[in-house]
Amino acid sequence: MDIKSKNLDELTTLCQEIREKILQTVSINGGHLSSNMGVVELIVAMHYVFEAGNDPFIFDVSHQSYTHKLLTDRWESFSTLRQFNGISGYTKPSESKFDYFVAGHSSTSISLAVGACKAIKLKNEDRLPVALIGDGALSAGMAYEALNELGDRKYPCVIILNDNEMSISKPIGALSKYLSQMMAGAFYQNFKARVNQFLSYVPDSAAYMAKRFEEGFRLITPGMFFEELGLEYIGPVDGHDLKSLISTFQTAKTMKKPVIVHVQTIKGKGYIPAEGRHEKWHGVSPFDLESGESIKKSGSKSATAIFSDLLLNLANEHENVVGVTAAMPSGTGMDKLIEKFPDRFWDVAIAEQHAITSMAAMAKEGFKPYIAIYSTFMQRAYDQIIHDCAIMNLPVVLCMDRAGIVGEDGETHQGVFDISFLNAIPNLNLVAPRDEQSFKNIMEFSYSFNAPLAIRYPRGEFLASGNTKSEPIKLAKGQILAQGNSKIAFIGYGNGVGKAMQVANGLDFEPTIVDLIFIKPLDKELLLELTKEHKIWYIFSDSAKKGGVGEILSAFLQENLVHDVEIKSFEYEDKFIKHGKLNLVEEELEISVDMIRKYILNNKKY
Amino acid sequence: MDIKSKNLDELTTLCQEIREKILQTVSINGGHLSSNMGVVELIVAMHYVFEAGNDPFIFDVSHQSYTHKLLTDRWESFSTLRQFNGISGYTKPSESKFDYFVAGHSSTSISLAVGACKAIKLKNEDRLPVALIGDGALSAGMAYEALNELGDRKYPCVIILNDNEMSISKPIGALSKYLSQMMAGAFYQNFKARVNQFLSYVPDSAAYMAKRFEEGFRLITPGMFFEELGLEYIGPVDGHDLKSLISTFQTAKTMKKPVIVHVQTIKGKGYIPAEGRHEKWHGVSPFDLESGESIKKSGSKSATAIFSDLLLNLANEHENVVGVTAAMPSGTGMDKLIEKFPDRFWDVAIAEQHAITSMAAMAKEGFKPYIAIYSTFMQRAYDQIIHDCAIMNLPVVLCMDRAGIVGEDGETHQGVFDISFLNAIPNLNLVAPRDEQSFKNIMEFSYSFNAPLAIRYPRGEFLASGNTKSEPIKLAKGQILAQGNSKIAFIGYGNGVGKAMQVANGLDFEPTIVDLIFIKPLDKELLLELTKEHKIWYIFSDSAKKGGVGEILSAFLQENLVHDVEIKSFEYEDKFIKHGKLNLVEEELEISVDMIRKYILNNKKY
Repeated sequence: MDIKSKNLDELTTLCQEIREKILQTVSINGGHLSSNMGVVELIVAMHYVFEAGNDPFIFDVSHQSYTHKLLTDRWESFSTLRQFNGISGYTKPSESKFDYFVAGHSSTSISLAVGACKAIKLKNEDRLPVALIGDGALSAGMAYEALNELGDRKYPCVIILNDNEMSISKPIGALSKYLSQMMAGAFYQNFKARVNQFLSYVPDSAAYMAKRFEEGFRLITPGMFFEELGLEYIGPVDGHDLKSLISTFQTAKTMKKPVIVHVQTIKGKGYIPAEGRHEKWHGVSPFDLESGESIKKSGSKSATAIFSDLLLNLANEHENVVGVTAAMPSGTGMDKLIEKFPDRFWDVAIAEQHAITSMAAMAKEGFKPYIAIYSTFMQRAYDQIIHDCAIMNLPVVLCMDRAGIVGEDGETHQGVFDISFLNAIPNLNLVAPRDEQSFKNIMEFSYSFNAPLAIRYPRGEFLASGNTKSEPIKLAKGQILAQGNSKIAFIGYGNGVGKAMQVANGLDFEPTIVDLIFIKPLDKELLLELTKEHKIWYIFSDSAKKGGVGEILSAFLQENLVHDVEIKSFEYEDKFIKHGKLNLVEEELEISVDMIRKYILNNKKY
Repeated sequence: MDIKSKNLDELTTLCQEIREKILQTVSINGGHLSSNMGVVELIVAMHYVFEAGNDPFIFDVSHQSYTHKLLTDRWESFSTLRQFNGISGYTKPSESKFDYFVAGHSSTSISLAVGACKAIKLKNEDRLPVALIGDGALSAGMAYEALNELGDRKYPCVIILNDNEMSISKPIGALSKYLSQMMAGAFYQNFKARVNQFLSYVPDSAAYMAKRFEEGFRLITPGMFFEELGLEYIGPVDGHDLKSLISTFQTAKTMKKPVIVHVQTIKGKGYIPAEGRHEKWHGVSPFDLESGESIKKSGSKSATAIFSDLLLNLANEHENVVGVTAAMPSGTGMDKLIEKFPDRFWDVAIAEQHAITSMAAMAKEGFKPYIAIYSTFMQRAYDQIIHDCAIMNLPVVLCMDRAGIVGEDGETHQGVFDISFLNAIPNLNLVAPRDEQSFKNIMEFSYSFNAPLAIRYPRGEFLASGNTKSEPIKLAKGQILAQGNSKIAFIGYGNGVGKAMQVANGLDFEPTIVDLIFIKPLDKELLLELTKEHKIWYIFSDSAKKGGVGEILSAFLQENLVHDVEIKSFEYEDKFIKHGKLNLVEEELEISVDMIRKYILNNKKY
């Protein structure tokens, strides 16, 4: 879109059109609403001032990039947002040359900008990296690591700090507080007190000057935090005032230094039901535009809701139960606990590393920490699991929501690697529920279990119906759910058990159905017994094949010198999995329930 | 040791004795010298003021905890420092109740302190966490995540910032610069300029006041960076002045707030050859006390040195070769490259996450980044490998030094998990050299290879002699090094190949010896061919069994319906591996060359 030839009125009209487009589309497809509504003017001004396609536009997390997508050849296709084979909810270079990087995890943008700066300098090109990062993303240490280098080396680039004072949920952490206090004056109060203290040592005549200095500090200090890190600072700017945004960006463009442009925006701007609301309007399901009400079909209880209720019970029962989430209070169901027990449950912002290590210390002190982090974000704290939990063999519980395919968020968010990367860690134990009842048993087990434990469970509802008997959990004990009449065993783990049951329904023979319950340690006794009569094992788990359940069992058979059992796993092949509804994605991967059933029937060996 | 009853003179004498003890021991055993020599007074003062055993003493990285060890019942056993079955070079609760946590990786201490604070508050105990962290460790984002929560919640605790202005190597990053400039006045210069600018708007009579204010700022501002994060700040204090340290710590103890005590120390203090020297005296091999010269037997070229030379060649040849290290320039051999090509090779401080993501952007821009990070520290950037390199399928090269058992550093530093955690990542390829020649071929291959690649190589010298023929590398192509006369194959990966060759030497039959070269993707053709005549596969690799080479090959056989081959792997069992010389550790693990040979001979099936 030729945006540079438009005048201010035309740009204002464009913003209105963009807002309507976003609202319409998200109300039908679901998506990130409030963040995108909040940055319409900001991104329009970015495109007006900087050179899209030439200047790297780097969107942090990139969930707020809808306006950018609309401005870069995706106006028509925008109706396919987040749909299977449609456009992604995040930036994606394979979708458009205007998208610089894939991003879906937080706080990578400044590092990418630093890399781009180094490249531009070496190539001696006339391009300026422009990164857009929210105040929430600034809480992750990685952003700070990048600022630390940028402030030292002083590469020209523009970091737009989109300060909507809420991140995904409430503002957390000292820096967030600092940003919101800057204007409110608390910071100056503190500074003034120190100045006054100093003034008590100087003559009385200083009173007038002191007063003037106090006023002066309002001009001097807002960006000091960043200036101490060697960065220039401009702001704050009203993020809904196109004219100010444009002139500020034009200033930043000419500075030839790393500059933070501090922009203040209102999340949800332009859609009254969402304005100023917090987490509820961050990522939404389809909703009714008029009322703002979700048009979600009511289903069974989600795994998240089950977890939340079970943990609340545990916390009610045991005083030493504590917990943490990293900026996902409602996504993980921790919100209820933080509300009820604000002294025992914490949101520590987008800080997975710190979340885990701080809870390791609590475990050492006799508490029982439950750490609720999505499977995909657990990747961000891998070393902390090894170094701070497992070596010390501490009884933390890693509660990994969104394990498996997550649907519309797509490749950056799939929770498919956790079994592979956790299985190698000594002392760590891996367990997964198949339904509400087994989740309950596992949570009870977890409380009294005295070593690190990781629990994985899916987004949304369990596939298993919950009518299967479920015995109390014992470490390394699986369960036979159905004794078959063939030499075929269906072995499931977690939500894979439900899939195994669905596939079993409609076959012309009866497989034996096993729930591993633990993938580490394995139930050797059960598995070895199983090898005697069951010579074909079909594996069901919503996890990567490499390092996943099938491979772990293959290795188990080798180690136990069992050479007459064949394993076929229906886990995910070694590729990143694209976005879209679960059933469509699984069909493309040729592992839908029907396709698996057909495969098994065609492969008759029972 | 009853330190609290001593007077200042006695404490000074004690410091002298401690320094001598450390020097004596480290000159014989090797270890961390300069950091420990620099903090003797600091730790003595910690023990004098705070309550060891009651107050959690949290040592960041904990390589600087020797004085603490000497003061807590380890004076006699200190001579076994870093030796097999001797005391660890890091804090270790299983060694002493005075050690709060295992630590070996940087920047975890503030998170641990926050966790301890939360626990103490809930238990309503009279204990005060005291964390000791170096300025280098403060460059990692995780430390900042923790400060961000601490400054918000304001738990009482003492964070001692040991500022020796050099971290492991040179000071890096804006914060480090900030710390060193605070006293030098550059920060004030900047501030003064702003004040002057402000003063230009006020009457001339302000000149006198401006001058006074300038002086005042020296009192007011040093800790502003921390104060902006909501923390109290005291300092800087001379870290070799026991009296100041004690009185400052006493002040901090009574503040009931989170307080940063900024202590300035000189690394190597008290041993002239090491004083003020940089990286050389950080971690040392045994050395001659008189001359300061290392008493290391000369051996073959280390894998690190080979890598360094090869990368230098590549960088000479190709302008687009760039690289990064995270605070380990000499440890990784990157120092030579940074010296020769300061515009193309960078040390980004202890910031593994940022290192990887910034290089991903450079790869996107057409550069060829080599990222040199120890295997154990690669764990700290796991998500960045997946999210920023692999999804984008960018041609970065992860150069993982210190793969395998690292010897005296022990369990926190063993580089044994990388195959397991990397193998599950789509698009990523895994390769390993066995000797200098194959390393050369792999580096050549890596340059023109257009996807993410990870190379692992051991600490010290390769086991393989380097006399084996080595062909140019092709993706997914292994090599048969020796055709045997039995149905037994020795399959090696990386340094495991050398071990396979050593074991083969002295058997009463000839195994076929295979170098996989790639563990991902596998050489299917070679392996399937091998299954025809070779029915027992012995696996050699210095990696964890879980998810390691043996398990990957077991899964391969299953997938290819090969059921008549037996695999036995000599990789590491699922336990953390303790410190000590490689040969002693491997003997305890029952996988020394002799033990493996004996096992194979006793297991005659050839």
